[in-house]
Amino acid sequence: MKRRAADTPGLISFAGGLPAPGEFPRAKLAASFVRALQNPSCPALQYGWPEGDEDLRAWIAGQLRRRGAQVARDDVIVTSGAQQAVSLAAQLLLRGPRARTGVDRESYPGALDLFRELGATVVDDGSHVDAYYLMPAVSNPRGRKLSRSDRARVLSTLRPIIEDDAYADLSFDGAAPRPLLAEAPDRVFHVGTFSKTLCPGLRIGWLVPPRSLRAEILQLKQSDDLQAASLPQAVLEDYLRTENFDQRLVRLREFYGRRADRMERALRRHLPGWRFDPPTGGFAIWVEPDAEPNEAFLLAAAIEHGVAFDPGSLFRAHGAVSPFALRLCFSSVACDEDLDEGVRRLARCWAEVA
Amino acid sequence: MKRRAADTPGLISFAGGLPAPGEFPRAKLAASFVRALQNPSCPALQYGWPEGDEDLRAWIAGQLRRRGAQVARDDVIVTSGAQQAVSLAAQLLLRGPRARTGVDRESYPGALDLFRELGATVVDDGSHVDAYYLMPAVSNPRGRKLSRSDRARVLSTLRPIIEDDAYADLSFDGAAPRPLLAEAPDRVFHVGTFSKTLCPGLRIGWLVPPRSLRAEILQLKQSDDLQAASLPQAVLEDYLRTENFDQRLVRLREFYGRRADRMERALRRHLPGWRFDPPTGGFAIWVEPDAEPNEAFLLAAAIEHGVAFDPGSLFRAHGAVSPFALRLCFSSVACDEDLDEGVRRLARCWAEVA
Repeated sequence: MKRRAADTPGLISFAGGLPAPGEFPRAKLAASFVRALQNPSCPALQYGWPEGDEDLRAWIAGQLRRRGAQVARDDVIVTSGAQQAVSLAAQLLLRGPRARTGVDRESYPGALDLFRELGATVVDDGSHVDAYYLMPAVSNPRGRKLSRSDRARVLSTLRPIIEDDAYADLSFDGAAPRPLLAEAPDRVFHVGTFSKTLCPGLRIGWLVPPRSLRAEILQLKQSDDLQAASLPQAVLEDYLRTENFDQRLVRLREFYGRRADRMERALRRHLPGWRFDPPTGGFAIWVEPDAEPNEAFLLAAAIEHGVAFDPGSLFRAHGAVSPFALRLCFSSVACDEDLDEGVRRLARCWAEVA
Repeated sequence: MKRRAADTPGLISFAGGLPAPGEFPRAKLAASFVRALQNPSCPALQYGWPEGDEDLRAWIAGQLRRRGAQVARDDVIVTSGAQQAVSLAAQLLLRGPRARTGVDRESYPGALDLFRELGATVVDDGSHVDAYYLMPAVSNPRGRKLSRSDRARVLSTLRPIIEDDAYADLSFDGAAPRPLLAEAPDRVFHVGTFSKTLCPGLRIGWLVPPRSLRAEILQLKQSDDLQAASLPQAVLEDYLRTENFDQRLVRLREFYGRRADRMERALRRHLPGWRFDPPTGGFAIWVEPDAEPNEAFLLAAAIEHGVAFDPGSLFRAHGAVSPFALRLCFSSVACDEDLDEGVRRLARCWAEVA
């Protein structure tokens, strides 16, 4: 269905969780690439160490220290995107046939698929688990911050936590909050990425595992794919050294915050019966409409109407289609007007189907 | 020890299996990058499909068809280097606690580590196995082609085979041979990479699994790291479209063949007691000296003398240090003269230690 949508001309896609391509700093990345190739030993094109580029790791550690976590350069492992970081942590935490992971009522499908692939049981009911997978700063798909009480409750269980911070820098109201890593570095596996704030095509993320497990994680990483690609690491290292990334983040927060507002207004106008909590960050709005149509049928009808979305079942531990819900990404449409037009198309489709 | 060697100034390294950095086509890759960023939808920086870039897969399939294998574009999965391709195949083939992999008497350490990591038993004695891992065109570390009789024997067992073709295009005497994939596409997992023929920094490899298992492999790939990085794929796709890769391969075969010759001559002159079979391709010579010194001690002494090598135990299924052997890579030294000087240093060290 995803591929069918991608092949439909003129479609407005609220699916996929993609960043806005217009915000990719193309010219600056090209300049960084050219500079990176001028290094005489040319590390950009050669094999590198499994833990990743030293300067890049120092930069990542510095960002985490600013947020209150005691992280040194050598605590950081550069990964092939955040997905691999979650995968490495999960491979270590979810061994054995009866492993259980605790997740939010809705969570990131790529992680849910991974946990199932590893044979783990995924639960969202607060029962005993071997590890949690959470997005405390900005959740996906809801785009909300973990509440104080839930934060305290999860920490009090003393279980290991995979903290997926993919959207943390994209809280609309300001800088990323204090990570769980700062509270419990001995059992938090902290995951981050440049995919949302810079561009996904680099596939550069990171993992900060507990120090005592670093060597084991690094061995897993090496067996998986030796190392994250040197070329994107070299480009990124140069880019971060020469550009003001904080300024970029301020601009991105405004950009996505404005898009969220506009989509909320369009939803209230054209689909007043649909319930949602306004997101406080991220790329999407989680919507719970006022009827229970067949999910696959609605998606097919929506594509006919020239608009796509992510069906709610994707985000649920057991793939439940009820209560009916959907994720609407405002992040990657070509222009702001597409937000209004896409919602109008959704409303027309809804009037026909539901 | 590897890191200590990397930090020793003036060291001549015969370790690591790295390609010659002087052969990286820097300017052409930079031009490809700049062109790739001019594509209005900018796939180089955005998320892509898990199976990889369509045109790149078509190119890879075309190369394999020229070698006699019936491969279509959609049979190919682009991976984060050959290591991930081996890892995906192994994850699927070596499930269960008693899985056994058959390998050559000496094999690629990254694969051996991976199989152990997965809990498999690695055997080199011809006993029953669940799958083979082989490098039939050009083996690592010996740089030799699988003999006709061994090829026939392995095929006759009807077991699945991971065919690692990393060095296949670097046979000194000409084009890559017919792959095992051409004989048994229903049970060969064919692995390739651009790391040896172009540059490792892209981390772009591929896997051609049996058709019936493609969907399952793709699911594993997606859980591992979503997709290979878009940026290197876009650069590569442009590069392959605009350059004559066959011509590059001809030049590289001459380049590495000449280096192999020169190192063989230096070994015969300075270490006449060391036995080796001249490699017919690849980056290295596998040497069996005429004494049995302590491996770690010899390596430390060699680094003191300003030369490094890969100890033989790394390449053995059970890490055996005896019979004493070592791998000497002629591929990545700064210039041809370093081959002579490095071997002279080795000879001086050997005279002291052995």
